[in-house]
Amino acid sequence: MKKALLILADGFEEIEAVTPIDLLRRAGIKVFVASLGYNTSVKGARGITVEADYSLSEIENDFDALILPGGRNGAKNLANSKIVLSLIEDMNKEGKLIAAICASPAVVLGKTTVLSGKKATCYPGCGGDFKSDVIYVEDSVVIVDNIITSRGPGTASDFSLAIIKVLLDDNSAVNISKQTLFKSIQEVI
Amino acid sequence: MKKALLILADGFEEIEAVTPIDLLRRAGIKVFVASLGYNTSVKGARGITVEADYSLSEIENDFDALILPGGRNGAKNLANSKIVLSLIEDMNKEGKLIAAICASPAVVLGKTTVLSGKKATCYPGCGGDFKSDVIYVEDSVVIVDNIITSRGPGTASDFSLAIIKVLLDDNSAVNISKQTLFKSIQEVI
Repeated sequence: MKKALLILADGFEEIEAVTPIDLLRRAGIKVFVASLGYNTSVKGARGITVEADYSLSEIENDFDALILPGGRNGAKNLANSKIVLSLIEDMNKEGKLIAAICASPAVVLGKTTVLSGKKATCYPGCGGDFKSDVIYVEDSVVIVDNIITSRGPGTASDFSLAIIKVLLDDNSAVNISKQTLFKSIQEVI
Repeated sequence: MKKALLILADGFEEIEAVTPIDLLRRAGIKVFVASLGYNTSVKGARGITVEADYSLSEIENDFDALILPGGRNGAKNLANSKIVLSLIEDMNKEGKLIAAICASPAVVLGKTTVLSGKKATCYPGCGGDFKSDVIYVEDSVVIVDNIITSRGPGTASDFSLAIIKVLLDDNSAVNISKQTLFKSIQEVI
């Protein structure tokens, strides 16, 4: 069974966190939801508190994918964590999937080397946080090698379906899309 | 300021709960999230625990809108609550907005009189729970008088934008749609 780690930091964007957890679990991917800090109750940008399954400090690095939701403050908190930044670099070296949405592609991945020379997208207006060697594009979802980037709450379903497609296969993504009545799987597979 | 009550019961569908809370709060609507039971930690259908702001027993009935997320078990739990059923009837008599998605239009509103003679939609396969005087349609979002019904996780954003449109106005719905990069506001306004 594929295993994904999703990290919640205070100020995370709720739709961008809950949509991948929900859709990946429907697809049979084991999603470990970890809080950045020791407190597993994490408050999102719109005031919704989600209870993480673990604190990041309890988690072993043994995942097929890392998922970083956005939210301006949530992304800043992730970017200020040396543990998160080294986890990203380590997983990238092993070719593991790294998926970031909204502010996180620019604000978090932008502090690492994983996007060097690659195309990527992010929430409109956040592109300035990318390093100069990143090719910024405005597609809803960008898949390049082992990195998936996406734009905001409205692209969270396509982002999630793209992760399912990469971790599993096209059929799994189509099945989850149909089951949940999301329409735009055609754009991402 | 408009006030909406959203009720979380064990087994609620996470995307269908979080999307309206998130988008309505962005629009400046005060969303009260209440747990059906005394325990304010409520576990969704995909294992995500959300912390409600209140228990339903603490809440005064003084809202402009009632929002019922789906999830088969979540909807069943709502439908088994006399408090919820009488709240629906009371708010309907006052012409307040009642919005239900996924299994909830059929499983919950189907146990009340509020849809009598009206068009409504729900998650595919749940239509059998409607009373015989409901006109079942397959539109993503159906707005008839003070009732909004919708189909599933993939229609949760249109459902939320429809609620914003009815409680506030078209412009507010369009603004939130643009800000969050959801595309399909054209279908609901």
